[in-house]
This record gives sequence, C-alpha cells and structure tokens, in this order.
Amino acid sequence: METMKGIIQRYQHKRISLVEAGVTRHRSIFNGLKALAEDQPNCRLSKPEVVIIHDAVRPFVEEDVLLKVVTAAQEHGASGAIRPLVSTVISPSADSCLDHSLERARYRASEMPQAFLFDVIYEAYQQCSDYDLEFGTECLHLALKYSHIKAKLVEGSPDLWKVTYKRDLYAAESIIKERISQKVCVVMDTKEDEEHVGHCLEEMLKTELNHVKVTSGQDLQQIILEQCYNFVCVNVMTSDFEETQRLLNMVEESNLSILYPVVVISVHFLDYESVPLGQKMEKVMQIREFAKEAKKRNILLSGLLIYFPQVENNRGLEEQKLRESLRQGTTIISALIKERNSGLIGQLLVA
Amino acid sequence: METMKGIIQRYQHKRISLVEAGVTRHRSIFNGLKALAEDQPNCRLSKPEVVIIHDAVRPFVEEDVLLKVVTAAQEHGASGAIRPLVSTVISPSADSCLDHSLERARYRASEMPQAFLFDVIYEAYQQCSDYDLEFGTECLHLALKYSHIKAKLVEGSPDLWKVTYKRDLYAAESIIKERISQKVCVVMDTKEDEEHVGHCLEEMLKTELNHVKVTSGQDLQQIILEQCYNFVCVNVMTSDFEETQRLLNMVEESNLSILYPVVVISVHFLDYESVPLGQKMEKVMQIREFAKEAKKRNILLSGLLIYFPQVENNRGLEEQKLRESLRQGTTIISALIKERNSGLIGQLLVA
Repeated sequence: METMKGIIQRYQHKRISLVEAGVTRHRSIFNGLKALAEDQPNCRLSKPEVVIIHDAVRPFVEEDVLLKVVTAAQEHGASGAIRPLVSTVISPSADSCLDHSLERARYRASEMPQAFLFDVIYEAYQQCSDYDLEFGTECLHLALKYSHIKAKLVEGSPDLWKVTYKRDLYAAESIIKERISQKVCVVMDTKEDEEHVGHCLEEMLKTELNHVKVTSGQDLQQIILEQCYNFVCVNVMTSDFEETQRLLNMVEESNLSILYPVVVISVHFLDYESVPLGQKMEKVMQIREFAKEAKKRNILLSGLLIYFPQVENNRGLEEQKLRESLRQGTTIISALIKERNSGLIGQLLVA
Repeated sequence: METMKGIIQRYQHKRISLVEAGVTRHRSIFNGLKALAEDQPNCRLSKPEVVIIHDAVRPFVEEDVLLKVVTAAQEHGASGAIRPLVSTVISPSADSCLDHSLERARYRASEMPQAFLFDVIYEAYQQCSDYDLEFGTECLHLALKYSHIKAKLVEGSPDLWKVTYKRDLYAAESIIKERISQKVCVVMDTKEDEEHVGHCLEEMLKTELNHVKVTSGQDLQQIILEQCYNFVCVNVMTSDFEETQRLLNMVEESNLSILYPVVVISVHFLDYESVPLGQKMEKVMQIREFAKEAKKRNILLSGLLIYFPQVENNRGLEEQKLRESLRQGTTIISALIKERNSGLIGQLLVA
C-alpha cells in the first residue's frame, strides 16, 4: 500500500482510491467492488452505474476501447475485449497426450478491459462459490453463470496483450520508446533567413526521419505541454550552451521528464580549419558536466558537432559536403532518440 | 524460390531441399512430405523415420525441444510442444456475445515444433479432406483424426512463441541482441605486467557487466570460432589503429559478421595535458574512415578515449580518478554492445 501511495503521489494522480488485494484475482476484484458498494460498512465512495475491470499487466489500453466496452456494458450488462487466437488450443488427457483440439476460428482469447453494470458484476461476486474465488480467472464467466448476462464481445487492438514473459518487457520497452520518438522539436538560436545551415538541418530531419513529426520550437511551452520528448537545439550563432541551458531549464520546470527520459541534443557547427582545437576540447568537457546535472532530472543530453566545410571557389562542392555532414548528423540524432541510452550522455558526437 | 536459394547460398547452409509452398499451411506441409515420400514420382530424397514440422515464425527453437519431440514421436507416433494459456479462451455466439468460456487450466496452447513418424503424418495427409487442407491449422489434429494417434505433448520454453505482431519483432530483436551480448573479448596490445591500465579496464568490465563473460583475446581464432560478437581492443602502448586493424581483418576473414553485426571498440588512453590536441582530432577523422569500411562487412567500429589522469605527488587521487574514468568507459562499452546501433559508428567517445 505504501508503494502504491508513493506512485500516486509521485505522478500526481487524482481521484484514485486504493483497496487492499486478496490472495487470488477474483478476491482482489471483489474487494474493489465492495469499496464501491453502498451496502458495505464504511463505504466512502458512491456506487457507479458501470465499472471497468482492467489488468495492470496490459499497460497500452487506449481510450477508445474503454469507451466501447462501457457503451456495450450499458446496453448488454457486460462487455469485454477479445482477440483472435494466435495458436490452436488443445485439451490434454491425464497422461499428457492430445485428447482433442479446438477449431481455432471458432474461439477467441478473452482480454481486458471488461466493463459491467455495477449491479450485474457485484451480484455475481456475491453469489459465487469459494471454488470460483480461488481458481476462477474470468469475470465474463461469473456474469454469465450467476447474473445470466451474455457479455458483448468487442474486438481489441493487438497492444492489449498481457505483459507476461521477459520478451514482453522487451516489447513494451520498444513500444514506449517508439511512441515517445514520434515527435522531434527543433529549437534554433536565431530567427534569421531560411537559407542558413540550421534550417538545412531541420529540412533534412523532416525528409530523413520518416514517421517523425519535426516541429519548430517557436512556442516551446506549448510543445512541452503536448508531450514532445525530443529536442534538437541548433546553435548557429554561438558555440556556447546558453540556448541549450535555457531549454534544459524549461524542460525541467515542466515536469515533462517525470514519466519518460527526455532527449536533448545540442548541435554545433564547426569548421575545423577556422576554429582553434583547444576550444573544441573544452566544449567536450563542458557538455559532460551539463549532462551529468541533466541526468539527475531524467534528461539525456548529448552534443553533436556538424562539420561545416568551407571550400574556396567551389560553392557546389561545399554544398555537397555540407549535405553529407547534415545527413550523418540526422542519422546520429535518430540513433540517440531511438535508443535513449543513458550510457551515451555527455558525449560530443561528430558528423 | 530464388530468394530462398539466395539465403541458403549466402549463409552457406548444407543439406537443405526447397519445396514449393501451397496456398494454405496444410497444403505446404503436404508438399514437403511428398518430397520425402518414396511413392512420389521424381522423389530425390529418401524417406526418414521421423519428420519434424516447424514454423519459421518461431525462430528461437532450441535443440533440446527438438530432441524431446523426436524421441516422443518415435515412441508415440506423434508429439508436439505446448505452452500454458496466457488468456482465457472463450467461444462467441453468432451475435458476438459470450457463449461460454473454457476453464483455462484444462487447456494448452499448441505450439511448434511437432514431430511424427513419417508414415503416420503422411498417411493422415493422404486421407484428409479438401476442407482440412483449406481451413485446418493443426497437424496433431490430423494425426489423431486420420491415423488415430494421440500425440504426446511436451512442455516447450516461452521462447517458442510465434512472432506475429510488430511487438513480437521488437521482442525478437531484443532477444537476439541480448544473446549476442553475453560475451565480450578483450584484446590487449601488450602482454606486460598485470598492474597496468589495460588490465584495470578488463577487471572493471568483469565486475560491472553482470551476466557478461569477459575473456582475454589470447587465442582470437578460437574465440571467433565460439561466436563472440563483441571485441574491446585495448591500446596501451601506441595510439595508432594497428592492433584494431589486425582484429578487424581477423573478424572479416572468419565470416563471423554474416549473421549478426560484430561490435569492435578501439580503446585508447590519453592524458589531455601531455598529448597535443591536434593529434587527437586527427584520430577522430581516422576512426571514421575505418568505421565506414568496416560497416560494409557488418562490423560496427567505435573509438573510446579514456582519460588517464596524472596527478603529481598524489598517487591516491590519481588512482581514484582513473577508476572513475574506467567505470564510465565500462558504461559506454556496455551501451555500445547492448544497442548495436550502426548510426553511432566511427565516433570517438570520451570517458
């Protein structure tokens, strides 16, 4: 209970009541229902028309399937999400041999969420046997057996699957990483003409990163509110970290990084010939310090040096070389956003 | 057929015969069986005692489960791998309402591989109806229905699951990455005393990378043969890439990187004060060229500079700072091996 209270507080959830679990799935659900039932002593909550029952091990539930099961429950008394069977289901005999197999097309996997008229499911639980409470797993079954309600079945999305094995944790991690990598915000330290190198990079990001929405950071507050988890801070005018620092402060103040790590890439353009090398190495050490601080707030900061060639008397070659550098920069930015690996923070990568 | 022939040639598989697929699962399997049946015209293969049927979408099949199903098939005539059900299975009525649910503990998911006495499964396919061939999915069912064989059911591992949805591809990728990251080989450019910094790094890798087997690269040929996909090339004596180049050549000649990308990290130790910075930046450009070449052979090369502090008159502080650098180097090495992202090759990372 203390852990759960801590989570609610940390992520600033509202309107949550905790109820102690039972030793089996059905006993836990029954405890939850009792907390909403007005006939119970010390009831602090008011009885709802419809309740939704869900598993925490199915973290990717979308609002639309919740709406669907609730609507269907209002009409039919009970409703649950289903999915097609991936494997054939068979019945083994006592000696572990095949007794019979089920025709796959005639069956479905019962998933969560499920929704019920409160009275339907509460009455079912009140009537059900100790055997049900100990060994049963399926709420729809209880509604059918004790309240005689045939639940409406609603097709769910594949992402409703139950995170069960280690591979499911891998899959869940990748799904989250993919979701928070869909948007990249480019923040520029100048509002100058469209010709310059910063805008070239923004254009390149737009072309090369398919399926990624690249936005300009004109209204940063709004973009942070819309939960963008990736920022490319392009420094054309200066080679210091002032703009990056400003961005880091804004991200920190927003609490954006409470839930997921935020990636910030500080991009600098340098011509090897015209800038003293010592200055560059100083920068290396500088970004490591910034990154160490940012890491404490779950912000992953890296630096990216883009080689800005200057070829005398050959504008075409210069342009071509710049585009090569920008393309490599785009690849690096994409890798940093996709992997979101804290082991690589504070590095100054070179494109 | 051309694609499959290309794969067989590319990965140098032996003893594989290709048979054209049918339009349904059962028709494809029947075609495969016919190619082994001596009563068929133009049969080029000899009839086996036992056949194994497997799905390509279950790539993580281990030898021990193959052995188990084959042994069980020899005794019982048929055998297949099973897994517990993760969700309850239900039967919907025609109007998408719940008709009944199955008691989860009494059923199992039927997985692959399955093994059969050749005559058992071939006779079953010869007798089965067009309806079976069109709509059936379960070989164990055919063996039961037509050859009256009750297959022996063998408990399979969770990794036998069917790669079906996008999340399964994520999971499969992570499982492969995890498997090929279990071993790291440290190659040293010197066989000097145990005191020096190269050995400190090796010790640190052993302590910090749990579950990873860190081996010395004394017998590189043997280590490559044992399919180690990660190499840390530690350059203590020189700051050039001679040793790294030698390693790259050996990996290339071994064909190790045909199946999976090989990670090579070239580690150098530098004291910022005593080495000219220009030399360092030259190295940056140098490793990028090497990495570009190596990438063509599926080898992912990165550089790692470890800051080697020299504190005059304070051996203790020097030691402490060195250990800090080494620990950060270990974190970076671990990230590069884990992510195996080709977007980050050719970088010179700093610890």
